[in-house]
Amino acid sequence: MSVDESNNVHTRLQVHNCVVQPLLTDLYQITMAYAYWKSEKTSDTAVFDLFFRQNPFQGEFTIFGGLEECLRFLENFSYSDSDIEYLKTTLPPTIEQSFFGYLKELTAKDVKLYAIDEGSVVFPRVPLIRVEGPLIVVQLLETTLLTLVNFSSLMATNAARYRMAAGDNVSLLEFGLRRAQGPDGGLSASKYAYIGGFDGTSNLLAGKMFNIPVKGTHAHAYITSFSNPSELKNKTLVNLNNGKEQDLIDLTLSWRTTLSNLLHISESQASDGELAALVSFAIAFPEGFVALIDTYDVNKSGILNFCAVALALNDLGYKAIGVRIDSGDLAYLSNKSRETFVKVANEYNIPWFANLTIIASNDINEETIWSLNDQKHSIDCFGIGTHLVTCQRQPALGCVYKLVEVNGTPRIKLSQDGSKITMPGKKDAFRLYGADGFALIDLLKKSVEDPPVAKTKLLCRHPFDQKKRAFVVPSTIKPLYKIYWENGRIMQRLPDLSEVREHVKESLRSLRPDIKRNLNPTPYKVSVSDDLYEFMHELWMRNTPIGELS
Amino acid sequence: MSVDESNNVHTRLQVHNCVVQPLLTDLYQITMAYAYWKSEKTSDTAVFDLFFRQNPFQGEFTIFGGLEECLRFLENFSYSDSDIEYLKTTLPPTIEQSFFGYLKELTAKDVKLYAIDEGSVVFPRVPLIRVEGPLIVVQLLETTLLTLVNFSSLMATNAARYRMAAGDNVSLLEFGLRRAQGPDGGLSASKYAYIGGFDGTSNLLAGKMFNIPVKGTHAHAYITSFSNPSELKNKTLVNLNNGKEQDLIDLTLSWRTTLSNLLHISESQASDGELAALVSFAIAFPEGFVALIDTYDVNKSGILNFCAVALALNDLGYKAIGVRIDSGDLAYLSNKSRETFVKVANEYNIPWFANLTIIASNDINEETIWSLNDQKHSIDCFGIGTHLVTCQRQPALGCVYKLVEVNGTPRIKLSQDGSKITMPGKKDAFRLYGADGFALIDLLKKSVEDPPVAKTKLLCRHPFDQKKRAFVVPSTIKPLYKIYWENGRIMQRLPDLSEVREHVKESLRSLRPDIKRNLNPTPYKVSVSDDLYEFMHELWMRNTPIGELS
Repeated sequence: MSVDESNNVHTRLQVHNCVVQPLLTDLYQITMAYAYWKSEKTSDTAVFDLFFRQNPFQGEFTIFGGLEECLRFLENFSYSDSDIEYLKTTLPPTIEQSFFGYLKELTAKDVKLYAIDEGSVVFPRVPLIRVEGPLIVVQLLETTLLTLVNFSSLMATNAARYRMAAGDNVSLLEFGLRRAQGPDGGLSASKYAYIGGFDGTSNLLAGKMFNIPVKGTHAHAYITSFSNPSELKNKTLVNLNNGKEQDLIDLTLSWRTTLSNLLHISESQASDGELAALVSFAIAFPEGFVALIDTYDVNKSGILNFCAVALALNDLGYKAIGVRIDSGDLAYLSNKSRETFVKVANEYNIPWFANLTIIASNDINEETIWSLNDQKHSIDCFGIGTHLVTCQRQPALGCVYKLVEVNGTPRIKLSQDGSKITMPGKKDAFRLYGADGFALIDLLKKSVEDPPVAKTKLLCRHPFDQKKRAFVVPSTIKPLYKIYWENGRIMQRLPDLSEVREHVKESLRSLRPDIKRNLNPTPYKVSVSDDLYEFMHELWMRNTPIGELS
Repeated sequence: MSVDESNNVHTRLQVHNCVVQPLLTDLYQITMAYAYWKSEKTSDTAVFDLFFRQNPFQGEFTIFGGLEECLRFLENFSYSDSDIEYLKTTLPPTIEQSFFGYLKELTAKDVKLYAIDEGSVVFPRVPLIRVEGPLIVVQLLETTLLTLVNFSSLMATNAARYRMAAGDNVSLLEFGLRRAQGPDGGLSASKYAYIGGFDGTSNLLAGKMFNIPVKGTHAHAYITSFSNPSELKNKTLVNLNNGKEQDLIDLTLSWRTTLSNLLHISESQASDGELAALVSFAIAFPEGFVALIDTYDVNKSGILNFCAVALALNDLGYKAIGVRIDSGDLAYLSNKSRETFVKVANEYNIPWFANLTIIASNDINEETIWSLNDQKHSIDCFGIGTHLVTCQRQPALGCVYKLVEVNGTPRIKLSQDGSKITMPGKKDAFRLYGADGFALIDLLKKSVEDPPVAKTKLLCRHPFDQKKRAFVVPSTIKPLYKIYWENGRIMQRLPDLSEVREHVKESLRSLRPDIKRNLNPTPYKVSVSDDLYEFMHELWMRNTPIGELS
């Protein structure tokens, strides 16, 4: 590749176009592939589990995202000629050349992928995805699958937590593109925030690509770019009641004088530049007027100017939408704004004015929302950026991809850190529900075992603690895995974004409230069958070095 | 857009291909553009400053990254027909249709962009980029420029901090793709980590696209996929001394028995699966043998197996590279490994064996490196993932894009939060250096002022605190801005990645050590000229509401 090509954004996204490429992986996946190939392991088969060990954000649940992207990746898994050329220059010269011919022919057609439905609530140690197939191919998928699942799931989980904090009656908008981790980080954030329960985004490209509602008003720069009403060239708006063009500036100024008395706000302190900006914006968007009111001072300027414009619009037959507050004490300023709207509504008998939308933004995170709830606020909509899209509280989910079986023989990775021990062998997962519809426990079984039967007594064991065990009699049982990829194609109808979003809501509803709460949530239990317990512990025992107290 | 198109990764990256598109922005940039257009402001001009208010990671410096990507974006700034179609369906139906014709014709040809060189050390409030041109166009660039600068600069800064912690004699590799914020987040991380001072990445696509060295060995799965040496089909390697194929397994097993006595490690506790895996890897990569040695137990198994394979390789004329340790007490295990290497080197008179490379990975962050330095370690190379690529300590940089001038008239945004007040008007920036070559202070002046002259007494004032002022007599002065974009084209030769990387090093060298230190660094001073000070404060005064105690 030429120097010219190697270092510009044009090339960068061109190479990254169309689909996630198989080279979006770690070198060691390829070096391992070569070592396996060299060891004549091309017909070996393997099973890998993709799972995480801990829920993010000190919570007790996670939303699974990114499955569709994994499947699209499998559809397109194939090394291009330029990939092969690059690998030839990058791997040591001692590599046998026929390996590259082997790589060139690889596809994912012999891979099987089982997964939990995208948008489901999931828990630590229950594999989200189980991948089976030729050892070399399934090993090559590791990094890319992790990349696609980790941030998607983290983001969807973060968004779902904000939704729970805000409740169902408040709108949530994602405003984070400018602070996201790169252009595509911003797109992923918009997509998975929507899946997790947000109502829209400000990101136009995300709107175009994923059909997500886009929302937004204007920025402080719009307000500060105006000095006073005399500079407005376009001052009129059609009166919907009589079809005549009317001067919106005059009408607004007259309303401002009237309101100044009603609201006890001195007109001389209100910014004329702000008024000019709001009038011009109202002329541009008479049906969708939302005003940023904190550029100068909400109480001394913004609220007065906004109400004057909104009442002038009302005279011409238009209903304003509301205001956005982007700084200051959001609880206080929103309550103050609401009081003002109610006062104006009552004074002029315009009932809808009392219910104008109040949007709050400015560095809001999950804790801010809980705190605003405690303080009592009058906010109808939060615009959330940095903390949401970068998952500031915990910017990475730790999914791992572990080998659990080779050629039908279970494999185990012991670790000096006990929490990192893997559960060997091919397993299936089930969710057990009580009569009230709430999920009781997840149960992992060896795939060769019979599936559990509802309304029977099932022994559920803690995977590591011999003493912890319980009998559960579930009302219903849901197998968690479906075959999503086999014979080179996607085996299930893939839901669209809004269906996944619905599934998130539904899946969260099946979780007891104490598991979802913000403070000290109850852990949801993940268990193993007695057979799986014995099988795992026997294997651990066999692999524990002599003389080791494990 | 059809449902089919709206929700898959194929479309997603296709739409996102080739170049960052102008729709990668916030809706409100477009609504403002319409409101300006409707207000007949198409010939208004404006100046925006792009700057941040606080250095990341509790440090006192930042590395500026992302400039080239901004310039590539300007080159390609143009709405496609499908963008316009999308906007027509998204904006309110009351929008005048001729606006879309106006949008379709927009380019960045009338924009001028001044910037500090990419890779420079930069400080709060000194604009990194100054954009001048038609108000509507420069406003439309806001979100995209911020997206491109924010994460790039954050990532380069983070990498530079890791480099300072590790010192110049330790290699640093970026291993973070799997935990990055999306596929492109991973690519950006690899690119800007390299610029910031890393030596390579494990990310193959980043290697291919940006010509960054790629490094990596194998994963635990490789080790656990082998059970014992008998399963190896390919056991031989050419002896470089005599050209004969020799059985590497036999040789390794014989060395293991010998070493077992020397090192007092029981052979029966060492894993035979690990030995088989390492031998097979050595057969595949005899010239580049790096072994992961913590799968089972570094002291009881990994180090013994590694040394046995490395000595067998040595018999055949190959030099092993080293080991990677991915868990446990990295200081202790690295020292223990080094002791072993030294012992073997002395025993068998193989001096290079003492200097085998020790790579450490496993959740390393900047603090871990400082702590390992304190403990004394024998690590030659760190592989760093999650904390680096997600900038876990602070996952977003807060660059903002503020209007400072409209039609030649300065603009200011006051704020109830004093730290958010902007510096109005068009400004130039200079870096003043002392005789020792260290940077003394940055100085902002109004662009209409004469530039400062070296070896003269210059009054440098604190931008906000009237009492803080100092006279500085700099030995040399560097103007910080160059014109990077004018008349629709890039005006400077753009350095390649390794040149930017060199510039980072050089720029950091010009900073006094106390400003760069990890703990309680000294703030670097940013000042304004007397003229600019008076100008700003006069303007603030004029814009402060009556009755306000500011």
